[in-house]
Amino acid sequence: MTYSVAVSGASGYAGGEILRLLADHPDFEVRTVTAHSSAGQPLVAAQPHLRSYTHLTLKETSAETLAGHDVVFLALPHGASGAVAAELSEDTLVIDCGADHRLESPVDWAAFYGGEHHGSWAYGVPELPRLQGTQRDRLAKSRRIAAPGCNASTVALSLAPGIRAGVIDEHDLVSVLAVGPSGAGKSLKPHLLASEILGSANPYAVGGTHRHIPEIQQALRWAGASEPTISFTPVLVPMARGILATSSAKLVPGTTAAQVRAAWEDAYAGERFVQLLPEGEFPKTSDVTGANTALIGLAVDEAAGRVVVIAAVDNLVKGTAGAAIQSANIALGLAESTGLPVNGVAP
Amino acid sequence: MTYSVAVSGASGYAGGEILRLLADHPDFEVRTVTAHSSAGQPLVAAQPHLRSYTHLTLKETSAETLAGHDVVFLALPHGASGAVAAELSEDTLVIDCGADHRLESPVDWAAFYGGEHHGSWAYGVPELPRLQGTQRDRLAKSRRIAAPGCNASTVALSLAPGIRAGVIDEHDLVSVLAVGPSGAGKSLKPHLLASEILGSANPYAVGGTHRHIPEIQQALRWAGASEPTISFTPVLVPMARGILATSSAKLVPGTTAAQVRAAWEDAYAGERFVQLLPEGEFPKTSDVTGANTALIGLAVDEAAGRVVVIAAVDNLVKGTAGAAIQSANIALGLAESTGLPVNGVAP
Amino acid sequence: MTYSVAVSGASGYAGGEILRLLADHPDFEVRTVTAHSSAGQPLVAAQPHLRSYTHLTLKETSAETLAGHDVVFLALPHGASGAVAAELSEDTLVIDCGADHRLESPVDWAAFYGGEHHGSWAYGVPELPRLQGTQRDRLAKSRRIAAPGCNASTVALSLAPGIRAGVIDEHDLVSVLAVGPSGAGKSLKPHLLASEILGSANPYAVGGTHRHIPEIQQALRWAGASEPTISFTPVLVPMARGILATSSAKLVPGTTAAQVRAAWEDAYAGERFVQLLPEGEFPKTSDVTGANTALIGLAVDEAAGRVVVIAAVDNLVKGTAGAAIQSANIALGLAESTGLPVNGVAP
Amino acid sequence: MTYSVAVSGASGYAGGEILRLLADHPDFEVRTVTAHSSAGQPLVAAQPHLRSYTHLTLKETSAETLAGHDVVFLALPHGASGAVAAELSEDTLVIDCGADHRLESPVDWAAFYGGEHHGSWAYGVPELPRLQGTQRDRLAKSRRIAAPGCNASTVALSLAPGIRAGVIDEHDLVSVLAVGPSGAGKSLKPHLLASEILGSANPYAVGGTHRHIPEIQQALRWAGASEPTISFTPVLVPMARGILATSSAKLVPGTTAAQVRAAWEDAYAGERFVQLLPEGEFPKTSDVTGANTALIGLAVDEAAGRVVVIAAVDNLVKGTAGAAIQSANIALGLAESTGLPVNGVAP
Repeated sequence: MTYSVAVSGASGYAGGEILRLLADHPDFEVRTVTAHSSAGQPLVAAQPHLRSYTHLTLKETSAETLAGHDVVFLALPHGASGAVAAELSEDTLVIDCGADHRLESPVDWAAFYGGEHHGSWAYGVPELPRLQGTQRDRLAKSRRIAAPGCNASTVALSLAPGIRAGVIDEHDLVSVLAVGPSGAGKSLKPHLLASEILGSANPYAVGGTHRHIPEIQQALRWAGASEPTISFTPVLVPMARGILATSSAKLVPGTTAAQVRAAWEDAYAGERFVQLLPEGEFPKTSDVTGANTALIGLAVDEAAGRVVVIAAVDNLVKGTAGAAIQSANIALGLAESTGLPVNGVAP
Repeated sequence: MTYSVAVSGASGYAGGEILRLLADHPDFEVRTVTAHSSAGQPLVAAQPHLRSYTHLTLKETSAETLAGHDVVFLALPHGASGAVAAELSEDTLVIDCGADHRLESPVDWAAFYGGEHHGSWAYGVPELPRLQGTQRDRLAKSRRIAAPGCNASTVALSLAPGIRAGVIDEHDLVSVLAVGPSGAGKSLKPHLLASEILGSANPYAVGGTHRHIPEIQQALRWAGASEPTISFTPVLVPMARGILATSSAKLVPGTTAAQVRAAWEDAYAGERFVQLLPEGEFPKTSDVTGANTALIGLAVDEAAGRVVVIAAVDNLVKGTAGAAIQSANIALGLAESTGLPVNGVAP
Repeated sequence: MTYSVAVSGASGYAGGEILRLLADHPDFEVRTVTAHSSAGQPLVAAQPHLRSYTHLTLKETSAETLAGHDVVFLALPHGASGAVAAELSEDTLVIDCGADHRLESPVDWAAFYGGEHHGSWAYGVPELPRLQGTQRDRLAKSRRIAAPGCNASTVALSLAPGIRAGVIDEHDLVSVLAVGPSGAGKSLKPHLLASEILGSANPYAVGGTHRHIPEIQQALRWAGASEPTISFTPVLVPMARGILATSSAKLVPGTTAAQVRAAWEDAYAGERFVQLLPEGEFPKTSDVTGANTALIGLAVDEAAGRVVVIAAVDNLVKGTAGAAIQSANIALGLAESTGLPVNGVAP
Repeated sequence: MTYSVAVSGASGYAGGEILRLLADHPDFEVRTVTAHSSAGQPLVAAQPHLRSYTHLTLKETSAETLAGHDVVFLALPHGASGAVAAELSEDTLVIDCGADHRLESPVDWAAFYGGEHHGSWAYGVPELPRLQGTQRDRLAKSRRIAAPGCNASTVALSLAPGIRAGVIDEHDLVSVLAVGPSGAGKSLKPHLLASEILGSANPYAVGGTHRHIPEIQQALRWAGASEPTISFTPVLVPMARGILATSSAKLVPGTTAAQVRAAWEDAYAGERFVQLLPEGEFPKTSDVTGANTALIGLAVDEAAGRVVVIAAVDNLVKGTAGAAIQSANIALGLAESTGLPVNGVAP
């Protein structure tokens, strides 16, 4: 059967990427696209690269325009999706690409976002642990899904195997990320201007203030940690897309390098979209540009007593839109990889 | 008085940057430039941006062409400077921009470089600690100077104040660096091609293998550490120049945020070329492009129990050529900042 | 039916792009990949972004390894494909991505390439004019196809409609192209290093020496020109992929703006992969990244008496690999757009 | 003597560059910096790369704050400088980096800018022709100077020698420019976001609408043209700074290649900041990053009957701030090159 789809926030980067991927999905048909300030324009005016959608016009984002579809993707600014989602039928599959439904803890929500907490939905990173299984268990047949924060899911995928296997110290985690500016959306902010980004590397949210920190901690608790702490620093670099996360952790004393590698191998054996590279190989972000693939490389630094985990992810695909569609496939009982590219566009 | 200068490796990036800076130095006169494969060509053929040197032709690099100058800068591949330097007069001020004379420990040399160890020279980062004082004490009147590794000096400047003040744990240091490809020189290697670097972030030397690690450890020992260990990961990003080092360390229990900030403030009070930014401010690399300035921002992450130190440096200036000239100024008794820009070229 | 495919030059950029596109082609199955210096390695070692091909190992490029397939793509350095192709069966569909079989004129070949001329094959830009029809007429049922030069086809698509309609002066054509370095392949040349390309725009082959000039002239003659002349200047800019060609031509006196637009509208009406944008709209290269789409914008500058045509193309797709596959589809009688993306990957 | 200086628009890119250059100028002392929305902040908060100005605070831009200085630089949005300048003393040297005082023709002003025309001031490109001499003749002792448009001066310098020597056809001029986004200032416009610029080349003002066209025509008339027409297309590319202008013109029949080269050689013989490269050499923009240098390469394309002129300029230096200071030097009787770098910052 073909599922009818609406995409809100269709003029933005996340919305655009959902549409790009859905164009190759055999089971989904995009019927409605909505936006805010560009409502009334042809979609292709806002997204000139989406040539297969020249027949669509952007409508206003509202419960009315989104109603009546089998699947609704919400790619709205943080804080906007809770109200819209509440008006959609419980039978509709709703995937929220914003942060509104990611955190279980109202305390975390209050501390890092503020405002009303809308509760948590099934978390859209199927490969992450959840209790004895993975997030897939909750995603199956779910009708409400929270797509992940791109940085959060990248770091969680990097460290969860070590937590679950008990080989790393949950209190000594450090992640530094080289990230492209598309993760910040089309916001008109001075530090996102090309003149500022070109030729420069620029850190932000330094010192434990980034909103993805509680989301990482939540995922690590699902993997078995009790009160994980992480030093997390993103650095904007001059590439439109991509996250290269360098994470490291103190090894639990007595752990061997073989045990470490086995932890990650076990975690992702058989996964199509999360792949551990062989010993001595490490990914770069262009390996996964446009792909729903997370590539992970791993090294044990004996002298420093740490494992170093490198993960490359396309923030707009595996970090957002691809994760959303992969999760939707699971929820609807489709083959999980339907419509999702595993190959990157490089160079 | 005017000092006569020879620059070897003048066709490369480090050599070119030395020449660019010397063009504005009132006390130095470049008389000789040497190279290997481009010897015989006009300098400006190899360095078309150096328009003030149209009168110079590249000579062969040899003890003969370099002899007879007051100051000789060696910007040669690793392993090449030891032999050349040995043939130069002891009265000549020789500054080696290669690694050959940086490490005191023959064991470290053997482990990370191999081949003959040529001993260690005065280390060209004046602001770093040395015993009770700074490296300036050894640089003064020295006639043999080792300019630093760009990554090493950036990390050492980031962490040494915390070590000296005893506020951070020397066994729990982590540095991840976003670096531009010019640090690798003009080497014709596939991963340095523009098509590979553009749109990508690419880690290398992951897991404790980078040659700058023993150099960092040496600097931290000068600051008071005994056996420091550091997890060190550089990531190539698409900017020609620049290092953005994100370093963090576990705080010694009981340390307050004020004590942490005071450690860095004390270390760099009055320094022109190493500046601590105010609370809440962090540097980006374009702030220091072309400048001999290291900018440092600092935050204490209470939840993670770590201090996070962000340092921005131009690898070719404060990381190499500027450090070399600053050190030469000290050795010759000139004002330390002579000829060295403190302002960056931005955007 | 499924056609068996071999790709030579599979470790390079063009070869990699053919493989990326073929991964989504329902009628082709890649059985053999060959290379030169990396023969014996897993394909994914040379092309780490092609995760769907982890089962393939690179073989030596030779007539033996390529024989026995229905379709062979040659992505070899210029001058290497003539000999290989001569040994393949006449029934095999051979698509040469090199220059060896593009030019009909032995004089042009001698002037711009030199060495033996191997004759010309069907030209792989289906939308270009040929006599009263298009290149499709010769491509149909052909077993020997020359994929175009990326710059040449971009400029030919830009100007051919005006030539065919008789509205522009064939002796007053000017094209300036902003091009990404991937068009030059993985060659280890100093001017292709990231440090040289980042932050810079660098012209090459200035003054009428570029090898794509006779190829453009040939295409314009197919469109009806007799002795077209063109000033052609490519400029390397810091983007991995993409060609933004700005072409202009003096209008034939008396031509109206409406006649000009009609010429291009008529030429590309109904074409999926060559699209004329509405009045006042112009493409950028990221609109077509990864897509087999050429987007064209057009303006008449009354004051200057010229039409200005902007064309955006991904050099590796519509400029090379996509053109090759599109042409192969035609030759085999498949739907022309099979397996070819029309949407770009942006931002 | 030391001249007191005020810089308005000091929080922007042009203002910042004026300040960067003035930091090395021995005869100017910056006393006042003004801005609009960031007034009240430390200068270094808006311009963190200008470490030598930590003592300055931004004031409101007004006639009062600017009064009482020997030299005032206006780096304001177009349309804002006319009113401010009118209130400053006639003895004050005022250099306007905006467009308000560039055009002599009220008709051109009305057609391309609109609003009140404030008349034209001495034009700040000293090397350009003016009647029998150069613009220097009018700049000397002038107290009102219009710094040039960066694109306009680059193209004018490229083509004026051919016009003056009578070797090119003034009705057949074509310029296509690869330009960095800093030329557009810190404006918060969607197409200037890093995500849009990275990995893309994007044309704008296509078809004869760019405001620099009448400024180019004016300069060419000063060189001897009567009614020059030019097809002018700028293309935004992913580099923060720089203009690479590819200009071409039909040769007047009978002109030899030697005559062509002689025209440009004669025009710029002895010029420090406008240099013609030897036959076969062409500049790239990184050759002049941060420098007040325009580099020009030239080729005659016999087949196309055109001369192709490549010019590389840093839009913020020789295109704006450097031109302003060079002109101020002339007006004040200082050595023309005082405080102005001729060497670029590369790579």
